[in-house]
Amino acid sequence: MKALVYTGIETLELRDVPDPVLADDHHLIRIDSVGICGSDMHAYLGHDDRRPAPLILGHEAAGTVQGGPLDGARVTINPLVTCGTCSACVAGRDNLCSTRQIISMMPREGAFAQFVAMPERNLVRVPDAVSLEKASLAEPVAVGWHAIRLGLENLGGDRANSALVIGGGAIGVASAISLIAQGVRDVTLVEPNALRRDHLDLGAHVRVLAPEQIDGMLFDITVDCVGYDATRATACAATRPGGVILHVGLGGGTAGLDIRRLTLQEISFIGTYTYTAQDFRDTCAAMFDGRLGPLDWTETRPLKGGARAFSDLRKGVIAAPKIILKPA
Amino acid sequence: MKALVYTGIETLELRDVPDPVLADDHHLIRIDSVGICGSDMHAYLGHDDRRPAPLILGHEAAGTVQGGPLDGARVTINPLVTCGTCSACVAGRDNLCSTRQIISMMPREGAFAQFVAMPERNLVRVPDAVSLEKASLAEPVAVGWHAIRLGLENLGGDRANSALVIGGGAIGVASAISLIAQGVRDVTLVEPNALRRDHLDLGAHVRVLAPEQIDGMLFDITVDCVGYDATRATACAATRPGGVILHVGLGGGTAGLDIRRLTLQEISFIGTYTYTAQDFRDTCAAMFDGRLGPLDWTETRPLKGGARAFSDLRKGVIAAPKIILKPA
Repeated sequence: MKALVYTGIETLELRDVPDPVLADDHHLIRIDSVGICGSDMHAYLGHDDRRPAPLILGHEAAGTVQGGPLDGARVTINPLVTCGTCSACVAGRDNLCSTRQIISMMPREGAFAQFVAMPERNLVRVPDAVSLEKASLAEPVAVGWHAIRLGLENLGGDRANSALVIGGGAIGVASAISLIAQGVRDVTLVEPNALRRDHLDLGAHVRVLAPEQIDGMLFDITVDCVGYDATRATACAATRPGGVILHVGLGGGTAGLDIRRLTLQEISFIGTYTYTAQDFRDTCAAMFDGRLGPLDWTETRPLKGGARAFSDLRKGVIAAPKIILKPA
Repeated sequence: MKALVYTGIETLELRDVPDPVLADDHHLIRIDSVGICGSDMHAYLGHDDRRPAPLILGHEAAGTVQGGPLDGARVTINPLVTCGTCSACVAGRDNLCSTRQIISMMPREGAFAQFVAMPERNLVRVPDAVSLEKASLAEPVAVGWHAIRLGLENLGGDRANSALVIGGGAIGVASAISLIAQGVRDVTLVEPNALRRDHLDLGAHVRVLAPEQIDGMLFDITVDCVGYDATRATACAATRPGGVILHVGLGGGTAGLDIRRLTLQEISFIGTYTYTAQDFRDTCAAMFDGRLGPLDWTETRPLKGGARAFSDLRKGVIAAPKIILKPA
């Protein structure tokens, strides 16, 4: 099959590689659409020790089952493979499975390719009315959905009317639309890139602002989808007493937290990573019935243009929060 | 009346000062017992801008109402005075009241004195069978009780069998006994001071260890009752995936957090400060009916020995986690 292979720092090559080998309970999926994630970019820049070259990246994929009992089924893929038996899995926190794997990290190659192999429990059927392109957004949207669920659970019955989302990439957008879908009425998203900001239209309940425009505002919930020292500092200053910061971004650094304010004002700082299998299914259901809006914030390119897409993303010249590659 | 007045850095003087003036809804309480808190020590060392000299410190007090309709009532004092009408108060998070006051911080003088004035809603009746000395522990114990309640709420139905408490002062002890009382079965407390460690006997379910003895252990809940960079680092390393860190200590610094681990392993870092009025009443109920153990981890001294007590605490030569001063 054809695959876009990460072969070294800032280098991607379209290569012919062997088709995936099917393990017992696995199905072969012909990839229709696969998104580029910030973590793919992180690996591409050589910043992810867990993803050394050569490797097929990509884990946000939807396609059609080829062969076997599910032949022809249109599916979107939950890329997290978990054991189902460890204490985290049994507790319903399977995203914390002690042996979790994700496609695009060895031993599982990724989906920037014509085919990928996955167990049946990782496949969610896509209704005919929903394009596989939109269905491929399930993975990044589930990241936001899960974070918001954790935040609302943490607040319990406490006020959750307003939220700030830091970062206008796909996870930021996913968080904003998940906040609205889960009942938060007043959402503000801050994004420093004016090109991206002007492009974003997420409906009447989501304000899109430049970071300096929120000085002095306080929110019930803040979602840091960037995760650098500066964004953590913004999150600490912008969250009301008793509020919650959801830390999703893996930007880096260890500073930025106002520990004294977090303590005296009882602000919760909650790490959030991927999604449980139930969150993934709930996200798909909300996407398919329209609760997460038109999902029209993508740009599509052929897989063979993948190297150029990474390079353009790196330069910051792409307005859309999500680039979707098409192998076909 | 006699009062122990903080008059400058590391200086306390027993002075004659005017009796408190009674506002409309206030009662005069003759102080029987008043504990020395870490925050009193912080002020005594000149490290608390909110408590400039001259000032009467002390906010962990119990005594007897003198005069008025409650004359003779034995009470323990909730030292936090809140408005009851702001959004935090209405939401039941009155410890986050935007105009909260505490005795020992202006405009309210503290309880290292013969008398203090308080509103009736801040008084909890003490049963005859409970000494006022033990009743004066309600305040520090409520700090631990509240933190544990927040932690268990955060975990929801998730596993909460084991806990680590960092620091063997009164708040650490309060957290340990509150963990047991709220159903956590296996509690480990770490304390670097061997004198303090040897003194502590908190029952069969609480192990008391030196910090280096917990290397490699993982806990469902960690309570940092110290709040320095080093203890936060310990907390991050010792908390299991999906677990919770309760940050109670106000030691200082802004470092120590392993942000990447908190994020990838979904660990919640929760700031916790004082207690709600309901937590304070719940703590008193648990103290009075024996759920919090014998409360025998105190040492008593006369108020006139207060300056010496602070000096001894500063030198680390006191084994008991709590010194209680007696004005009478």
